[in-house]
Amino acid sequence: MAGESTVLMPMEQALEALLRQAEAAPIEDVESVSIDDAVGRILAEPLVAPLDLPPWPNSAMDGYAIREADLHAQPLRVSQKIFAGTQPEPLEPGSCARIFTGAPMPEGADSVEMQENAEVLDDGRVRFVESVRKGQHVRPQAGEARAGEQVLAAGVRLGPIELGLAASLGMPRLKVSRKLRVALLSTGDELVEPGETLQPGQIYNSNRVLLRHWLQRLGCDVTDVGIVPDDLSQVRQCLTDLHQVDLILSTGGVSVGEADYLGQVLREEGELRLWKLAIKPGKPLTCGNYRGVAVIGLPGNPASTLVTFGLLARPYLLRRMGASEIEPLSFLVPAGFSWAKPGKRREYLRARLEAGRAVLYANQSSSILRSAAWADGVVEVREHSQLEEGESVRFISFAELLG
Amino acid sequence: MAGESTVLMPMEQALEALLRQAEAAPIEDVESVSIDDAVGRILAEPLVAPLDLPPWPNSAMDGYAIREADLHAQPLRVSQKIFAGTQPEPLEPGSCARIFTGAPMPEGADSVEMQENAEVLDDGRVRFVESVRKGQHVRPQAGEARAGEQVLAAGVRLGPIELGLAASLGMPRLKVSRKLRVALLSTGDELVEPGETLQPGQIYNSNRVLLRHWLQRLGCDVTDVGIVPDDLSQVRQCLTDLHQVDLILSTGGVSVGEADYLGQVLREEGELRLWKLAIKPGKPLTCGNYRGVAVIGLPGNPASTLVTFGLLARPYLLRRMGASEIEPLSFLVPAGFSWAKPGKRREYLRARLEAGRAVLYANQSSSILRSAAWADGVVEVREHSQLEEGESVRFISFAELLG
Repeated sequence: MAGESTVLMPMEQALEALLRQAEAAPIEDVESVSIDDAVGRILAEPLVAPLDLPPWPNSAMDGYAIREADLHAQPLRVSQKIFAGTQPEPLEPGSCARIFTGAPMPEGADSVEMQENAEVLDDGRVRFVESVRKGQHVRPQAGEARAGEQVLAAGVRLGPIELGLAASLGMPRLKVSRKLRVALLSTGDELVEPGETLQPGQIYNSNRVLLRHWLQRLGCDVTDVGIVPDDLSQVRQCLTDLHQVDLILSTGGVSVGEADYLGQVLREEGELRLWKLAIKPGKPLTCGNYRGVAVIGLPGNPASTLVTFGLLARPYLLRRMGASEIEPLSFLVPAGFSWAKPGKRREYLRARLEAGRAVLYANQSSSILRSAAWADGVVEVREHSQLEEGESVRFISFAELLG
Repeated sequence: MAGESTVLMPMEQALEALLRQAEAAPIEDVESVSIDDAVGRILAEPLVAPLDLPPWPNSAMDGYAIREADLHAQPLRVSQKIFAGTQPEPLEPGSCARIFTGAPMPEGADSVEMQENAEVLDDGRVRFVESVRKGQHVRPQAGEARAGEQVLAAGVRLGPIELGLAASLGMPRLKVSRKLRVALLSTGDELVEPGETLQPGQIYNSNRVLLRHWLQRLGCDVTDVGIVPDDLSQVRQCLTDLHQVDLILSTGGVSVGEADYLGQVLREEGELRLWKLAIKPGKPLTCGNYRGVAVIGLPGNPASTLVTFGLLARPYLLRRMGASEIEPLSFLVPAGFSWAKPGKRREYLRARLEAGRAVLYANQSSSILRSAAWADGVVEVREHSQLEEGESVRFISFAELLG
């Protein structure tokens, strides 16, 4: 009967099962969204360059456009001045053109010499003080992308850089997956929202705020259900009232405790699987459906909520929206601590980088969120393993995980 | 006269000068903002715990609350059942209490045994199958924070985690610095907004979209001025029209080129300093003021805009809003490339992590943004240095830089 002796589900297995479920229920609706509103959205169709980028060869420098073969005839007369945004005349043979960064190369010119290497004579003619390599300081047409070429694949998450790139291709709107509609609910009679008065036995609900912001960053549309009381008919009513939801995300109330009404409703009107994960914090995870709508139930302790959402629910919902990259970047850093006792569960310890080493917050209790506010991210200590100070550990920064 | 032979300003010197300017003009207005709207804002006053967290000792497990000294008298009668959110009676001597995770400990109890280690007899009494350590599975009152203790310092940037922590302390609103008001403008007659038709010599403006999203993520209030034509009176009019702005951020048009009208207006109605930075991409940076309003002019090539904004403007504006941590996390990773020729400028190369190694995008031209969309971040190759494949390089991920 001892809890730790039951078989625990390895992290990889849980993630794989969740991703399979996500792939079985992809968001297939596609929306056209302005690039001004598309941050965090996932590209639904490849972005194909509608034009050559740049559209014509142009100067990489402020200087002079020349035909390299004319250089023997220096000094050269300046036959035109080409600003960015203008259309040049063909370069007159035996002359050069004053040109500015980004301005189109005139027909016939093949190289640019920067103004710092040019000497302007009294009569206005120009002599160049260094030798010129043919083609230098010219950005070729289509050097960045050729018309018809795929520039971003479907499944890319759109951040400021990708949207800037779409802008450079002249795309005012992009096709993205519809936002995942997530109903967010917290269960537990002990919970009270900030601003209310705590009665004996009550605590403030931190998970609603944590997850609402996080879901929004990930490009989800949040229906904030709030706190659902520990009462069977109210839990049932609350689920019945949900409409047009792709995922029900709950925290708390998925233990084997006697007051698990959410579990009871799922058993009756859908499906309930209780996983015991080999991770710490965050052992219990619920996975199932309510009348066909996917349900993920995270443990209610804040550090457990954080870790299970970040490492399991986050990739699940990104994948449902069609994202190709779902894992946060991680880095190997030297451990600023030792780990003597191998555990049965993989630990995700809240840690800060100090002088390049991962240092742990003293209190790693799953009930404590302050550890995460102090930390830069989590380090992963794998099950059944020990660690000496200075050995490499995998570090996942919150910037990667929260974005 | 050769450009590269003029003295270049080292990165550290430029950053230090910008931070000094930021600290001389801090945003001093403070706003009270709901924790539901405070993501990305900077805490203006320390967050002090208004209560003990947790407010009372509680159970870390589903199980039985006991007085350890009573265990000699096992099996114990169950004298009450304590759910989370309820107020327990004092524990009757010689009995135990059924208790659930998060429920308050009854007065007189000092330990919890988990239900997996309890055997319930036919008469309802309970015997424990393992020995109990006094105090086990009890979360002490104020274990996370004590009333009056500072939990977050002024200057902390508020993300989902910090806002969750504020919620757990019952704070519905927080005092944050007013958003920095940034007027964003692009100069250059060659620029056209996406959706319009390109005329000969024109290109689409990518920087407006890149920077608008980025500024918003950093908690700035953006006045999107758009493209300012290369015309002295229009540049002047556009600046005159700005009201209640803390920073004018421009891209392009700060070269030594002849069409630099923004520079001319600043010289006449404020101050203009042209820096030549020892970084690549991104050599030219303008820093000055227009009638007392700070101006930062970034180079217009997209990769230069990205690097100079991320490494110089970003810390500047975070510091003006009072942020304490302004530098992105960075990590040492093995270089998946070699660097034979020491440069005069520090290179920030767009790179991707492949099997833990930083691999470079083939085309590192400053005019190309596609490199950044392909990359996970930038690696720093310091001036005057060489690098062999496998050596460590500093890597800054875009998740750190963009958030």
